[in-house]
Amino acid sequence: MKTLADLFEHTLQDVYYAEHALTKALKTMQGAAGSAELKTAFADHLKETKEQIRILDQVFSMTGVEARGEKCDAIDGIIKEGEGVIEESEGVARDAGLIAAAQAAEHYEIARYGTLKEWAVALGHDEVAAQLDRILMQEKACNNKLTALAVDSINKAPRKRAAPKK
Amino acid sequence: MKTLADLFEHTLQDVYYAEHALTKALKTMQGAAGSAELKTAFADHLKETKEQIRILDQVFSMTGVEARGEKCDAIDGIIKEGEGVIEESEGVARDAGLIAAAQAAEHYEIARYGTLKEWAVALGHDEVAAQLDRILMQEKACNNKLTALAVDSINKAPRKRAAPKK
Repeated sequence: MKTLADLFEHTLQDVYYAEHALTKALKTMQGAAGSAELKTAFADHLKETKEQIRILDQVFSMTGVEARGEKCDAIDGIIKEGEGVIEESEGVARDAGLIAAAQAAEHYEIARYGTLKEWAVALGHDEVAAQLDRILMQEKACNNKLTALAVDSINKAPRKRAAPKK
Repeated sequence: MKTLADLFEHTLQDVYYAEHALTKALKTMQGAAGSAELKTAFADHLKETKEQIRILDQVFSMTGVEARGEKCDAIDGIIKEGEGVIEESEGVARDAGLIAAAQAAEHYEIARYGTLKEWAVALGHDEVAAQLDRILMQEKACNNKLTALAVDSINKAPRKRAAPKK
């Protein structure tokens, strides 16, 4: 990789792999979540992820880059940690751990789309940059929604449920 | 892991591992960077990372959690991708790729410290939450600094250097 265009191509294929991997992971997380609100949040983001894959297909087409995923060790590691949470935790801790795992994935995507958008701008692909920014805004909104769900509801659950024992 | 306290302990040990791993990675990235400004940014963040490890040692002491790292597949994957950039890229693309890799690591940390801070609040550890928030602010500032360096300087380099050929 010698140019910004090479990096752009490589990283676009990296997030394409990541989005496909997250499609599967989100289904698993939706099944493992205990809270109905959290199940809905994962289901909503699964729909959004499928839409993002369609936007990425357009970006591939617009830039002439081959639409294929390139193995991404980072998202594989993040998903592996999420699977560990499902295996090792139970009850209210599982939901809190699932949100944490999902937010690690969201932040990975925020980093990657932020970078890709700026590279698209530097390469003069303004329309591509706008499409990537659209995905970036969705990822940030999803992350904020998960923070609110954790802070306002899930993180308070252990204390709420422990209350009757006092 | 059945409680938020269990998750807090596990994730604190996860970021402790991540910070130690990043100490080594930042040295490698500093050596690989071409831009003097980027070398300085990595050197500055290495100092900050060492300070963050000292803050984490205090947090372990304040919470009674054993101060040890727990293998973190996510940061290992992120660092592996960064090493790939160093191996596969050259010239101006290498610096742009190094910033992207560093920002993926920063975002991982932003996710983790954001989660840990909120869990500390939920567990009633206000002083611990304040210490974790201190690290979180440093990670966000570092990420913003890297974005500015990419947008204002590194991403423009290929065009700057290509200009004389026109």
